Amino acid sequence: MSGRRMLVVGAHSADFVWRAAGAIAMHTRAGGEAVVVALSYGERGESGELWKDPQQTVENVKRLRHAEAERSAAAVGARFEAFDLGDYPLRIRDEDIDRLATLMREYAPHVVLTHPERDPFNPDHPAAHAAVATARQLTAGAGVSSGFRTAPPSEFLAFEPHQPELCGFVPTLFVDITEAMPAKREAMAAMAAQGYLREYYTQRADHRGNHARRVTGNTAIRQAEAFQRLIPNVVVAL
Amino acid sequence: MSGRRMLVVGAHSADFVWRAAGAIAMHTRAGGEAVVVALSYGERGESGELWKDPQQTVENVKRLRHAEAERSAAAVGARFEAFDLGDYPLRIRDEDIDRLATLMREYAPHVVLTHPERDPFNPDHPAAHAAVATARQLTAGAGVSSGFRTAPPSEFLAFEPHQPELCGFVPTLFVDITEAMPAKREAMAAMAAQGYLREYYTQRADHRGNHARRVTGNTAIRQAEAFQRLIPNVVVAL
Amino acid sequence: MSGRRMLVVGAHSADFVWRAAGAIAMHTRAGGEAVVVALSYGERGESGELWKDPQQTVENVKRLRHAEAERSAAAVGARFEAFDLGDYPLRIRDEDIDRLATLMREYAPHVVLTHPERDPFNPDHPAAHAAVATARQLTAGAGVSSGFRTAPPSEFLAFEPHQPELCGFVPTLFVDITEAMPAKREAMAAMAAQGYLREYYTQRADHRGNHARRVTGNTAIRQAEAFQRLIPNVVVAL
Amino acid sequence: MSGRRMLVVGAHSADFVWRAAGAIAMHTRAGGEAVVVALSYGERGESGELWKDPQQTVENVKRLRHAEAERSAAAVGARFEAFDLGDYPLRIRDEDIDRLATLMREYAPHVVLTHPERDPFNPDHPAAHAAVATARQLTAGAGVSSGFRTAPPSEFLAFEPHQPELCGFVPTLFVDITEAMPAKREAMAAMAAQGYLREYYTQRADHRGNHARRVTGNTAIRQAEAFQRLIPNVVVAL
Amino acid sequence: MSGRRMLVVGAHSADFVWRAAGAIAMHTRAGGEAVVVALSYGERGESGELWKDPQQTVENVKRLRHAEAERSAAAVGARFEAFDLGDYPLRIRDEDIDRLATLMREYAPHVVLTHPERDPFNPDHPAAHAAVATARQLTAGAGVSSGFRTAPPSEFLAFEPHQPELCGFVPTLFVDITEAMPAKREAMAAMAAQGYLREYYTQRADHRGNHARRVTGNTAIRQAEAFQRLIPNVVVAL
Amino acid sequence: MSGRRMLVVGAHSADFVWRAAGAIAMHTRAGGEAVVVALSYGERGESGELWKDPQQTVENVKRLRHAEAERSAAAVGARFEAFDLGDYPLRIRDEDIDRLATLMREYAPHVVLTHPERDPFNPDHPAAHAAVATARQLTAGAGVSSGFRTAPPSEFLAFEPHQPELCGFVPTLFVDITEAMPAKREAMAAMAAQGYLREYYTQRADHRGNHARRVTGNTAIRQAEAFQRLIPNVVVAL
Repeated sequence: MSGRRMLVVGAHSADFVWRAAGAIAMHTRAGGEAVVVALSYGERGESGELWKDPQQTVENVKRLRHAEAERSAAAVGARFEAFDLGDYPLRIRDEDIDRLATLMREYAPHVVLTHPERDPFNPDHPAAHAAVATARQLTAGAGVSSGFRTAPPSEFLAFEPHQPELCGFVPTLFVDITEAMPAKREAMAAMAAQGYLREYYTQRADHRGNHARRVTGNTAIRQAEAFQRLIPNVVVAL
Repeated sequence: MSGRRMLVVGAHSADFVWRAAGAIAMHTRAGGEAVVVALSYGERGESGELWKDPQQTVENVKRLRHAEAERSAAAVGARFEAFDLGDYPLRIRDEDIDRLATLMREYAPHVVLTHPERDPFNPDHPAAHAAVATARQLTAGAGVSSGFRTAPPSEFLAFEPHQPELCGFVPTLFVDITEAMPAKREAMAAMAAQGYLREYYTQRADHRGNHARRVTGNTAIRQAEAFQRLIPNVVVAL
Repeated sequence: MSGRRMLVVGAHSADFVWRAAGAIAMHTRAGGEAVVVALSYGERGESGELWKDPQQTVENVKRLRHAEAERSAAAVGARFEAFDLGDYPLRIRDEDIDRLATLMREYAPHVVLTHPERDPFNPDHPAAHAAVATARQLTAGAGVSSGFRTAPPSEFLAFEPHQPELCGFVPTLFVDITEAMPAKREAMAAMAAQGYLREYYTQRADHRGNHARRVTGNTAIRQAEAFQRLIPNVVVAL
Repeated sequence: MSGRRMLVVGAHSADFVWRAAGAIAMHTRAGGEAVVVALSYGERGESGELWKDPQQTVENVKRLRHAEAERSAAAVGARFEAFDLGDYPLRIRDEDIDRLATLMREYAPHVVLTHPERDPFNPDHPAAHAAVATARQLTAGAGVSSGFRTAPPSEFLAFEPHQPELCGFVPTLFVDITEAMPAKREAMAAMAAQGYLREYYTQRADHRGNHARRVTGNTAIRQAEAFQRLIPNVVVAL
Repeated sequence: MSGRRMLVVGAHSADFVWRAAGAIAMHTRAGGEAVVVALSYGERGESGELWKDPQQTVENVKRLRHAEAERSAAAVGARFEAFDLGDYPLRIRDEDIDRLATLMREYAPHVVLTHPERDPFNPDHPAAHAAVATARQLTAGAGVSSGFRTAPPSEFLAFEPHQPELCGFVPTLFVDITEAMPAKREAMAAMAAQGYLREYYTQRADHRGNHARRVTGNTAIRQAEAFQRLIPNVVVAL
Repeated sequence: MSGRRMLVVGAHSADFVWRAAGAIAMHTRAGGEAVVVALSYGERGESGELWKDPQQTVENVKRLRHAEAERSAAAVGARFEAFDLGDYPLRIRDEDIDRLATLMREYAPHVVLTHPERDPFNPDHPAAHAAVATARQLTAGAGVSSGFRTAPPSEFLAFEPHQPELCGFVPTLFVDITEAMPAKREAMAAMAAQGYLREYYTQRADHRGNHARRVTGNTAIRQAEAFQRLIPNVVVAL
C-alpha cells in the first residue's frame, strides 16, 4: 500500500467513521496515505446530542464537529478536510463538483470511497454520491489526451450505508479490519455527538467479520467492513 | 500464487479455452496449479467442423475432443479431466454433483471458475453452473464442524459467456493476460473443431484489454479477460 | 384510522383521482383525514377536452381544473391544495421542495402517497416523486435531535401509474375499495377534462379487485387499488 | 391474531429460531397458533458443537436436534414437526412437496414463513424455499372450483437469511418483537448445538430494532425481525 | 407473414386464448400458420365451472376441455395439440422436453410464444416456460454443424400473465389486434369452463390498446396484446 | 423506410459514428431521412489526437470536429447539427432541453436514438440521455389535445455504449448492417481525432454480426449494431 493514496468523501463529517474507519486505518498502517473530505458537517441533521442543548447554534455545532472529525481522522492516520456546504439538505452546485474534481486532480487518489447511489433515509447521501461520481469522471477524462488536466482513473467503491438492503448495497468485498479495530474504536469515540452509533457499528464490524470468516474459512478474522466496487478492478492473477 | 489451486469447470470441453485460458495461464505462470473439468465433450452440439464429415461418430468426436482439450490445457499449464456426461442436453444427476463435490473436497481449490447462472442460448451452461454452485456449497459446509469432510470455501467467479448482456453477466474484475496471450493463442489453436471462434476471442481479448486500460489508465495492458465474482472476497487493504 | 393523516401528492391536479381516490375514501370513511396536493394543474398537457376549444386559455384551464379537483377531493373526503408550479414540464426548484417540507412538518402525515420514481411517458411524474421523496426525508431528519423542526417519519407508498410495468411499479399492497367505489366514481365524474380515463380506471379497479381476491380468497372484494410500499412498515404481529 | 394460523418452514431444525422466533412469539402471545416444520435436522451440516465429539453419530445428532427444536418451539408457543429429509444436501422429491401441500391443506395457515429464494452460502435453503412456494401454490389452486381439495391462499413471507444482501433479501416489513425478546432468548438458548449464533442474532434483533425505530420514529421499539413479503397483501385502509 | 410458422405453448389448454388469441389470429389472417400445444388440459386446477358438478370426473373434464380448445384454436386459425401431462402440478420429465424438441425440429417455427419465466400464483406456468426454453435451445443447437437434427433459431416471446408485475413481465411489444378482436371474442366464447375470464381479458385488450395508442399516437388501434421478447430480434432498418 | 425520419442525438460529435452509423446508413439507403445532433463537440475530453499538439485551442478543435462530423454524417446520408453546449462536463440547462424539444416538434422523428441512461465512465452520456428522454416526452405530450404543439410519440432506442454491461445496456434488437458496412467504414475514417476507435468498432460490428447470426441462423449477416428499445413498439403481426 506504500505510496497509495485513498480519498474518502462523506456527506457529513462523521460518515467516514462508522463505515470506513477500519479500512482507512488498515490502509495507512500499511504505508498508504488517506484524505477524508466532508461535504458538510451534518450540523443540522446528524448532531443529535449537541442539539439537546437549547442554546446550541449552528456555528458552534460546526466548530465542535470539525474538531471531532479531525481527532477521528487522526486516529486512523488520515487528514480531514471540510467543504462546509450545508446539510439537510446538502445542495451541491456545479462549482462544488468542480472543486472536488480539482482536489482529485491534485491528490490523484488510487482509490475513492463514498456513499452508495441510493439511500431512502437520507437526502444528502445520494447527493454526495452523485457529486463524487461526476467529479471522478471529470478527473479521469475519457482515457485519451484531452484539453484539461487529468489524473489516472481511481478504483471506486461504496461504503456500507445504515440500512444496506434498502439502499441497494450489495457487498462485493470485505476488508479484514481485525488489526485496525482499536483505531476504529478510538475514531468512533471521538465522535461524541453521535455516541448512540458506537455500539451499533462495533457490533456491525463483528457481523461483517463473521461474514468474512464464512467466505474464506479464515478464523483469524474478527472484524470487517463491507464495500461494494462500483467499477471493475484489474488484477494479474486470480 | 505459488501453491494456489484453481479449478475451472466447463459444460463442454472447449469452454475453458475461449473464456479463461489467459487467466489460467497467468495463474500457472505465477506458480499456481490448475485443473480443468469438462462435464461433457460438447460432442454433439459444439463440434462444428467434425460433424461436416458424414462418417463421423459420437465416439470418435469424443476421442478427438479429449485430445484437443488435453493439448489446450497443457498449453496453459493445466491438467484436464473429463466427466463425459453427454451434451445437448447436459443432464446432471445427483451423483454427478456428488462426484464434483468429492473432487472439490480432495483438490480443495482456492478459486473456482465456471459459467454464469443464465444463458438463453445454451441449455448446458446453466446446468453446469448450478452443479458447480451446489457442489461448491456442499464442499464448504456451513463453516462449522460437520458430519462430513469439508474443504475451505473457495473464491467463486463466472467467466465471460458468448453474449454477456443476455446472460446477465456484469464484469467485476479484469485479469490482465497480456503476458499470457501467446499461451492463450496456442490453447485456442489446439481446438481445431471450433476454429471459427479463434478470431472472435482473440479480438475479444483485445477489447477487454481496452476496457482494462480504461479503468486503470495502465497503457501496458494489451489483452484481458473479464470475470464476475459471485461471492465477495476478503482483502486486508484497499 | 381515526386521527390518522394522509397526504397525497400528484404532479397534476387529477392524478390522485385515478390511482388513489378509493384508498383516500376508505381512509376518510374510517375516520382518517386526507390532504391532496397538486404540484400543477396539468393545465397544458393533461386537459384534453378543454383544449379542443380554440379560445381556451391557460388561466381558464387552471380555474376549471381547480374547481374540478376540489369537487373530486370533496367526494372522497379530502381537502385540495394547489401549488401551481406549471406542467409539461413541471420544473421544481429548491424552494418548492422546502415548501412541501414545511407543509409536511406542519401536517405531520402518517402516510404519504405519490407517483413512482420512474415513468417513461410523463416527465412530470418522476419530478413529483423526487420532490416528495426529498421533502419527506427533510421532514423526518435523521431520527435524532436536530437543528430544525421535524415530524415523525411517514409511511411512504407509490400509487399505480398508467403503464405499471414500464414504470417499474410492482404492487406490494392492494387496498380493498369495494365500499368506496361509489365515492371514487363520483370523484372521477368530477374530472370532466379527462373523461376518457373514467372507463379505463373503473375497469382497472375491477382488475385489481380480481387480483386482491386471488391473493386472499376473499370473494367479497369487488374493487381494489394497487400500491407499492417504498419503505418497510412496522407491525406487532403477522 | 386470535384464531390465526402461522406455518414456518425451515430447511434445518434451527432455522426458525434465529430468524423468526420473535415473530412467532408475538403471534402466539396475541392468540394465534403456530406450527414449525423442519425439512431436515441440519444434522450433518449445521450441528457444529455436536460433531466435535468424535464418537458422534447422525442418529444421535438427529435425536438431540429434535429435542432442542421441540424445547425451542415450545418457548415461543409453537408446535414442532420434523420431515427428516436429510441435509447437505436437502434433496426434495415430488412426494415431499405433496406431503407439504397436504399439511397445508389440512392446517390451512393464514401466513407462511420460509427462507428467501436464493442463498449462495447454503444449498438447502433455496431447496426449502422452492418446495414451500410450490406446495403453497398447489394448496390454493387457481382460485376457482377445482378437482382437488384446496385451502385459501396464505400470506407468504421470507424471513431474514444470514447474509441478506447476498441472498437478494430486501426487508419490506419489520415485526416489533420487543415484548417477545425474552421468549426469543429462551428459544435461542435451547439450541445448544449452534450456540455461536446466539450473540449474533441477539445483536441483529437490536439492529433491526434500530431500523424499525428509524422508519416509525417510535422509540419504544427495542428489537425487531425483518421479513420480505413475497406476495402483496390486502388491507381495507392505509 | 405468408409461410411463417408460429408455435404457442401453454401449460393448460386455455392459456393461449386469454393472452395470445389476438396475435395468433393476426398471424393466420396474414397468411401465417399456427400450432397451439397444451402441455395439460388444466383439468384439475383451472376448470372452475365444470367442477361445480359433483359428478364430474377428470376424464370427462379433459374431453370437454379438448373440444373447447379445438374450437377456440379453430376460431383463430390454429391447429390444437395436447400433450396431456397432468396439471396442478404439471411435472415435466426429460422425455417430455425431448418430445417438445422433436415437435420443434419438425415444425421449425419462426416464432415461439409461451408463459414468462416466473409466476408466483401458478406452479405450472414456470414449469411450462422452462420446458419450452430448453426444448427451443435443443432444437437450434449451437448454431454450427452438429451431431443431431436442428431447426433454425426461432423468435421467442412471453405472452402476458394474469398479474404481470408480480411475474416480472415487462411488455416490449404490443400487437395491434383490432382487426382480430372478433376472432378473439369467438375463441374466448369457446372456453366455457373459464367464462369468468372473458370480461377480464376483453377489458385487458382495450387497456393494452390504450397503451399501444399511447406509444404510437395511432388512434386507429382499439385493442392490443402485450408480449415480451426474450431474445433480441434482427431487422434491416429501424 | 421511405419518408421515415430518424433523429440521433449524441453527447459528443463522434458518438453517432461508432455506435449507430450502420443503422443510419441502412435507414437512409432504404429511403429514410436522418438528422444527427451533437450536444457538444467532445472538444475537451474526446479529441485525443488533436490535443497532442501543444498549440491546440478549444476553438480550433471545435472547428475540426465540426468538419469531421459533417463528413461522417454525409457518408451515411445524414444531416449534422451541433448544439455546442460544452463537454466534460456537458451541463444541460432547461433552455437546452426546450431547444431539443422544439427541434423534435418540428422534425417529428419516427425514431430517436441516443445514449443509454447510465455510463460510469462518462459524465456526459447520461446527461445527454436525460435531456433527450425529457425533450421527447415534452414533444409528445400526454397523448391528448394539449395547450402546446406536439408531435407523435417516436420510437426510442439506446445505442451501444463502450462498456455495455457496466452501463446496464441489454440488446433487444440487432440491425443487420452488412450492406452498410462500407458506409460505416467511411464515416469512421472521417473521424480522424479518434482513430484509435476505428479498429475496435470494426471488430465490434463483426461480433454483433456473429450474435445476430446466432439468433436468426441467417449466415448472410456479416456485421450488425446492437440497440435497446426503451419503449415498447407496436406491430400488426409477429
